[in-house]
Amino acid sequence: MKYAIGLDYGTNSVRCLIVDVADGRELGTCVYGYETGEAGIILDSADHNLARQNPADYLKGVEVTVAGAVAEAKQAEPTFDPKAIVGIGVDTTGSTPLPVDKTGTPLALLDAFKNNPNAHAWLWKDHTGYAEAAEITELAAKDRPEYLAKCGGTYSSEWFLSKILHCLRVDPDVFDAAYTWVEHADWLPAVLTGTDAPETLRRCRCAAGHKAMFNDDWGGYPDAEFLGKLDPKLGQLRQTLSDQTFAVDEAAGNLTDEWASKLGLTAGIPVAMGAFDAHLGAVGSGIKEGVLVKIIGTSTCDMVVAPSSSKLPDIPGICGIVDGSILPGFYGLEAGQSAVGDIFNWFVNYIQPGGKEAGSHESLTTKAAQLKPGQSGLLALDWNNGNRTILVDQRLTGLLLGQTLHTRPEEIYRALVEATAFGALTIINRFAEYGVDIAEVVNCGGISEKNAMLMQIYADVTGREMKISRSAQTCALGSAIAAAVVGGAYADFGAAQTAMCGIKETTFKPIPENHQVYQRLYKLYRQLHDGFGLRDDAIAMGNVMKELLDIKEKANA
Amino acid sequence: MKYAIGLDYGTNSVRCLIVDVADGRELGTCVYGYETGEAGIILDSADHNLARQNPADYLKGVEVTVAGAVAEAKQAEPTFDPKAIVGIGVDTTGSTPLPVDKTGTPLALLDAFKNNPNAHAWLWKDHTGYAEAAEITELAAKDRPEYLAKCGGTYSSEWFLSKILHCLRVDPDVFDAAYTWVEHADWLPAVLTGTDAPETLRRCRCAAGHKAMFNDDWGGYPDAEFLGKLDPKLGQLRQTLSDQTFAVDEAAGNLTDEWASKLGLTAGIPVAMGAFDAHLGAVGSGIKEGVLVKIIGTSTCDMVVAPSSSKLPDIPGICGIVDGSILPGFYGLEAGQSAVGDIFNWFVNYIQPGGKEAGSHESLTTKAAQLKPGQSGLLALDWNNGNRTILVDQRLTGLLLGQTLHTRPEEIYRALVEATAFGALTIINRFAEYGVDIAEVVNCGGISEKNAMLMQIYADVTGREMKISRSAQTCALGSAIAAAVVGGAYADFGAAQTAMCGIKETTFKPIPENHQVYQRLYKLYRQLHDGFGLRDDAIAMGNVMKELLDIKEKANA
Repeated sequence: MKYAIGLDYGTNSVRCLIVDVADGRELGTCVYGYETGEAGIILDSADHNLARQNPADYLKGVEVTVAGAVAEAKQAEPTFDPKAIVGIGVDTTGSTPLPVDKTGTPLALLDAFKNNPNAHAWLWKDHTGYAEAAEITELAAKDRPEYLAKCGGTYSSEWFLSKILHCLRVDPDVFDAAYTWVEHADWLPAVLTGTDAPETLRRCRCAAGHKAMFNDDWGGYPDAEFLGKLDPKLGQLRQTLSDQTFAVDEAAGNLTDEWASKLGLTAGIPVAMGAFDAHLGAVGSGIKEGVLVKIIGTSTCDMVVAPSSSKLPDIPGICGIVDGSILPGFYGLEAGQSAVGDIFNWFVNYIQPGGKEAGSHESLTTKAAQLKPGQSGLLALDWNNGNRTILVDQRLTGLLLGQTLHTRPEEIYRALVEATAFGALTIINRFAEYGVDIAEVVNCGGISEKNAMLMQIYADVTGREMKISRSAQTCALGSAIAAAVVGGAYADFGAAQTAMCGIKETTFKPIPENHQVYQRLYKLYRQLHDGFGLRDDAIAMGNVMKELLDIKEKANA
Repeated sequence: MKYAIGLDYGTNSVRCLIVDVADGRELGTCVYGYETGEAGIILDSADHNLARQNPADYLKGVEVTVAGAVAEAKQAEPTFDPKAIVGIGVDTTGSTPLPVDKTGTPLALLDAFKNNPNAHAWLWKDHTGYAEAAEITELAAKDRPEYLAKCGGTYSSEWFLSKILHCLRVDPDVFDAAYTWVEHADWLPAVLTGTDAPETLRRCRCAAGHKAMFNDDWGGYPDAEFLGKLDPKLGQLRQTLSDQTFAVDEAAGNLTDEWASKLGLTAGIPVAMGAFDAHLGAVGSGIKEGVLVKIIGTSTCDMVVAPSSSKLPDIPGICGIVDGSILPGFYGLEAGQSAVGDIFNWFVNYIQPGGKEAGSHESLTTKAAQLKPGQSGLLALDWNNGNRTILVDQRLTGLLLGQTLHTRPEEIYRALVEATAFGALTIINRFAEYGVDIAEVVNCGGISEKNAMLMQIYADVTGREMKISRSAQTCALGSAIAAAVVGGAYADFGAAQTAMCGIKETTFKPIPENHQVYQRLYKLYRQLHDGFGLRDDAIAMGNVMKELLDIKEKANA
């Protein structure tokens, strides 16, 4: 028997999963919630854009969750031996860079900086660098349009360079104390394998390509001249960024004796290169050519792969097209919605409609499921946290239209769910417009498993069958698959996925009459989307309220 | 000592007020809630547009409230003698027509029809006739544009002919059984004076002019040929509509012996012609040239007068310009917002944000009052019940823009209040654009007295001082003033108003820095207003979300 470990670092917690490499069977799992800040996130009440994390939580998470998962695996299968674990895979959120000193130690772990949020990990959803993102976009549009073309036309405030440049501007002490900045996904495998000193650190293809404009076409990261125009110090930082990156079929290194003894594992087993949670989640969901994997949680990641041999055009609004970022030998294409579950959580937790019981997700979903498409006369934009794809504009805001004096909370709840479905369809359409056809949609993440109404609406809106990944922890499973590959259990990812991934029996098929109504509603959604989302091409709105009423009347007839 | 009675028929109840004609001092008052339906309104769960009332409630209301007010007046002033009451004035909601038979008896009071909502009074906010309103508008635009010009360019579903035509279409039995249709404001004084038979009934200027396109320029009500094109039976009904109407300085008749003995009043005292609640409310608030009276309740009425000798243009979107409809000798101009308090009530009662305590009007207002203009980044349209002025389109719906994952209920509450203030400013601007200058704004109605935050926002948004009428029951006071005039206590309304009306000491003055922010927000409101409200002239929207964010950032700086 051979086993693999997947470590999955999420927004609020880290999970360890131990699987049987033969069939993906899950033997043990354990979750550790980060201790620092609110639900593991350092916030600033004066600045809603700020979100940081403590790397000490990342380290403690390894010890706690591996021990927990091993204990559970032993209980499930008395013959289980942790020494039979052949490798470790790691996925994290991203872009979540942290400043480190010349030895590779995160500044946040030094006494001098331990209370300074700027010295901590800048979590993916930190938007403090939105002005810097605009600055980078503007300069690239002028001087290096090729950079932008590969990341959807706009550089995001969530990404690596926006965050570093913002730190340089607001806290030069932290910037100056940092030798370089490292993605969480690179730092963690490097720590486990003792390769975290800058001269030995390997950076992953996934983070570099999707979030830092890394591309072999122009010699890796953006050049020093370009970065120097943003700030001379950023230009100097360029030399600390390596010219080579690695996909998940390569190892970051081998588990050190120290960590092996701490964790009770075999010293020297390979630790795979890290990647973002969504990318390894796509692997765990069985991604291959023609399959769109949607990871639906607080936000979504929508992922597609296309053979590296294919001639792909640049696709406006798609966050990145990076060779080998998801599967070796394939371009990884990443899109996403900035908020999905977060919008429903906002409505339930912040607006608290109908009091605590009537306003729970469960109660609202039960009532909303009884409504017919179009019946409420409501239409919403899913932009409460901006729009990642296809507009790439974090500052966009939400919109709700069609309220009357009779509008009820469950109608708004359903309209918010529908808005996220329209957002999802907009992404699928964008892929298709540029020749990347989607033959199959596989969903994963808690919401896709728990909320049948949402899945049915997604099927009805998109006109496509919605499948759900078998594993409830596909990101951790994807990491374990990478571990199995670098651990030598399989020759490649395709073989590992065939053995270790699966789809749930229940799927959601589109209901034709619902799809018909949603096709009308989607036209109106696009009108609002383009009217409010595009800067120049404004679109007429005078018909929107009235057409919504026509749809409402027909739905109620 | 001389006294006058004002009877004020509202949406859910009727009030009787007894005042001293010398100074408007209020001696006794009593309220009776209508017993039929929900809070006095017959509803239909399958059709939100339907709202009817039982005329039996109107009759019982006279007896209950006069007795109650007399008892209270006697207690307040032992020398008070109801025989010293010199007249009765009546105001009602409108357009609230009811079908009556050849004797003047409402069909709803006959056994054959007592359970048929179509035979009852069609309350002002009944919108079932929206298709017929569109039909009337279309025909008038083609054949009788002069009709439309006097009522704002669009005939409303809330009005007299839309309701009658809708009844004809959906319930011909009721239509055929009716000899004619009578406004509540005409029917009640006629009953008290025994003039309710069709051949003696006097119809009031106010209802006929504002809601039924009555104008001396074309010989009164719309002609039979025009009505006959809508339906031959409607053309035949024309002969039951009189060619003469009467303003509130004339009597409908004299109190019958029977009613005098029932009420304990002097037989033969005059009962003034009825008028709509808002119009007599304007009288009670001291309306005169240059004064805008805003009655702020579930909806608003905004009233202005201009001398009958002045040359007034037609004003698009103003519900009516009718000679003598508010004050004899003046044009009455009526505008209004379809929902104000109703929008706040919707948010509190239907959405129930934050549970019962946190979501009360009081609690939300307290928190919302601490916000600065523009700070929330939210902007709303006040159209949850359509738009009466200046778009005259009952089918328009609400809109909320600018939500983030951090938006809280009190921010939405404030945005809804601000939206109604922007709606109020749009009306003031429309008057001014057509040469009707507003020198002074006097508010009345419960909200204006209770909600200081709202009044301050109205001052800040409009850039004008907000004054509040002294009486808490200005409509009933206005009716009592009409009673005093027809009862001979004053030669004209001006003299009566000077003696009997007043303004509260506390007023709300605009704060310049708030007004500045609201001037920016109002521009965006107008963009949404025109973009969503006009059919043809669509307006670019691409800037709206971003400009809101700029305003939000400045407000938070």
